[in-house]
Amino acid sequence: MKVAVLGFGTVGFGVYEMLKKAKGLEPGPVLVRSGKKDADFKVTSIDEIVNDPTVDAVAEVMGGVEPAYSYAAAALRAGKHFVTSNKALVAAKGPELDAIARERGVAFLFSAACGGGVPFLHNLALARESDEIRSMGGILNGTTNYMLDAMQRLHLDYADVLRDAQRLGYAEADPTADVSGLDALRKIMLASAVAYGTLPTEGLLNEGIESVTAADVAHFQSRGYTCRLIASGGKQDGGVYAYVEPVLLRDGAAECSVLQNFNMARYEGACAGSIVLMGQGAGRWPTASAVLRDLSGILRGEREMFPENVQRGAVDNSLCRHSYYVRLPKALAEKLPAASVEEEGDVARVLTEPMAVSEMHSLAKQMREGGAEVFFAAVRE
Amino acid sequence: MKVAVLGFGTVGFGVYEMLKKAKGLEPGPVLVRSGKKDADFKVTSIDEIVNDPTVDAVAEVMGGVEPAYSYAAAALRAGKHFVTSNKALVAAKGPELDAIARERGVAFLFSAACGGGVPFLHNLALARESDEIRSMGGILNGTTNYMLDAMQRLHLDYADVLRDAQRLGYAEADPTADVSGLDALRKIMLASAVAYGTLPTEGLLNEGIESVTAADVAHFQSRGYTCRLIASGGKQDGGVYAYVEPVLLRDGAAECSVLQNFNMARYEGACAGSIVLMGQGAGRWPTASAVLRDLSGILRGEREMFPENVQRGAVDNSLCRHSYYVRLPKALAEKLPAASVEEEGDVARVLTEPMAVSEMHSLAKQMREGGAEVFFAAVRE
Repeated sequence: MKVAVLGFGTVGFGVYEMLKKAKGLEPGPVLVRSGKKDADFKVTSIDEIVNDPTVDAVAEVMGGVEPAYSYAAAALRAGKHFVTSNKALVAAKGPELDAIARERGVAFLFSAACGGGVPFLHNLALARESDEIRSMGGILNGTTNYMLDAMQRLHLDYADVLRDAQRLGYAEADPTADVSGLDALRKIMLASAVAYGTLPTEGLLNEGIESVTAADVAHFQSRGYTCRLIASGGKQDGGVYAYVEPVLLRDGAAECSVLQNFNMARYEGACAGSIVLMGQGAGRWPTASAVLRDLSGILRGEREMFPENVQRGAVDNSLCRHSYYVRLPKALAEKLPAASVEEEGDVARVLTEPMAVSEMHSLAKQMREGGAEVFFAAVRE
Repeated sequence: MKVAVLGFGTVGFGVYEMLKKAKGLEPGPVLVRSGKKDADFKVTSIDEIVNDPTVDAVAEVMGGVEPAYSYAAAALRAGKHFVTSNKALVAAKGPELDAIARERGVAFLFSAACGGGVPFLHNLALARESDEIRSMGGILNGTTNYMLDAMQRLHLDYADVLRDAQRLGYAEADPTADVSGLDALRKIMLASAVAYGTLPTEGLLNEGIESVTAADVAHFQSRGYTCRLIASGGKQDGGVYAYVEPVLLRDGAAECSVLQNFNMARYEGACAGSIVLMGQGAGRWPTASAVLRDLSGILRGEREMFPENVQRGAVDNSLCRHSYYVRLPKALAEKLPAASVEEEGDVARVLTEPMAVSEMHSLAKQMREGGAEVFFAAVRE
């Protein structure tokens, strides 16, 4: 199967090199920006790929919604299998691409868009066919895991670890999508669509790690907790939930062994129980390996990751309740259903009674709109 | 796809119930022992399944090499897909069954035979197509993990935790296959065959947990180590290795978060890096869920787990070297390349310089033949 590659950056190069060695696969033309054509195998127009009858499949690793969506739709309409690592594309246009792929009887797969090298969506899609997926999620953003881990183990402050993450290439010059939880949120959106056939677009909540300080980390570390940014999705009481927030885990929990920029994805099946997958969530070779696994899957007969007729829908994040650790100005502590409060100068550290996720996120938003500095994290015992 | 089930014990019942709800699957006849036929869907002769043209696939969960092998061969020859949870069968007769399946163009899959509910072999088979598998293994026996975990966390002795494991149904009345490491060894044999096309039958080594005492556990616990029974396989310097032995891991390693009877499987790809999968390694529903995932995989086009033309072969366990912790009679300590020795009465606890795996296993065997009590475990820093 000859595979054209869209994009020749970090991951594109990795995909191209892996295609040379993989069983049953070979590299086809590679789409690059005009001006970047410095070899015969590179082309600068998508038409040279879409109209090439020797190209069987297209692997897209450019990122962004456009022109990726136009290219993807054209490739699928031309009867070519389409594989992508682009979570923004699938979160925005997944249902449309899936419909075209099914109409043409070709594959639309996107393992690399969630969990990088971790084979999460592929396994979730397979498990869904015979088991009832109760919940899923995990540590789906390597950048923030690197930062939280460094803050805890090296006792560094937020600004320092962000600078280190940028220097190491883990964080972009503009790190907003990572540190705000948006990147992890897009991934749990995809997982929810794979598990339940609903791509959540309304009611989503994401709290990132921008508010965490070295003092917060020292505080919960001294009490035997480790902080991780966790994406959560699932079904409860007939509704679907999906949100991202920091979580404090008891030392010894599996999540605490996820160091540096590694990812840990998880799903819970009614029969299988909890299935956990860990590995490198980003980087040239891990991401390329996920793209290649999808391509090998096509050779083995795999065609779709979404269930049939995937729809956009709303989630209800009032379905889940847990206790929160909240650091906020002392004067605001009374707004929380406190189980215990510690005060230090003007700051209060509150452990709350169980609260709805939506309530906590909404309270923090209100307080911040009033100018308050607030950090919160769910507490998992 | 109508699926007949061979065996109606713990797992067989689970498979039958899951088949009623799974997409695209339905339960067919169930083979039970004569005298156990108490319902219309139960049959007592394999011929009633093999000769039934409405049966598309057979799921075998009886265990043992015979009559499972004869039944499997007959089903495959009759053009029916064959799925099994039976590691003894696949370790003994996998190459023969794979050849028949390929000849007839039907599926031969056995995810549930290694890792129970953990989707290990399926992912290993997919990764092998495009990545170079450098090594694999992990905690593949839940019974011994339960026992080691209980010894460490509850400070119980070997005899006590074995009795508890038997009472909980984790260990058989005859626990030899589990505690000797043979069960884990069979699983790493299957993984090696999936990854490299060589089913190892010669040169294999398995050291179990039969020699560990509460004093050993207390000793390495006080030094920040946790003991797990780990199966290891891989390629090195052109050869293949495969062995099972206790390993001491630094607290905080991912393996230490694997509690009770859970499993943790792992493979390392040249591109993907380390991929770790955790979940329930045994039990009705987890094992049934793995059988069902294989059946759903057949609907998605999956046909084989072994690469083409899998062969039996030898392994070379002198390829791997590491330090060992060895507890033995003081008089024998000089036989080891000691990095450090602690003595207490007649007993010595030696930390060795790096030694070949085959050398350590062979030395312990010699010492035990001379009547000595010896416990050893690899040390992973």
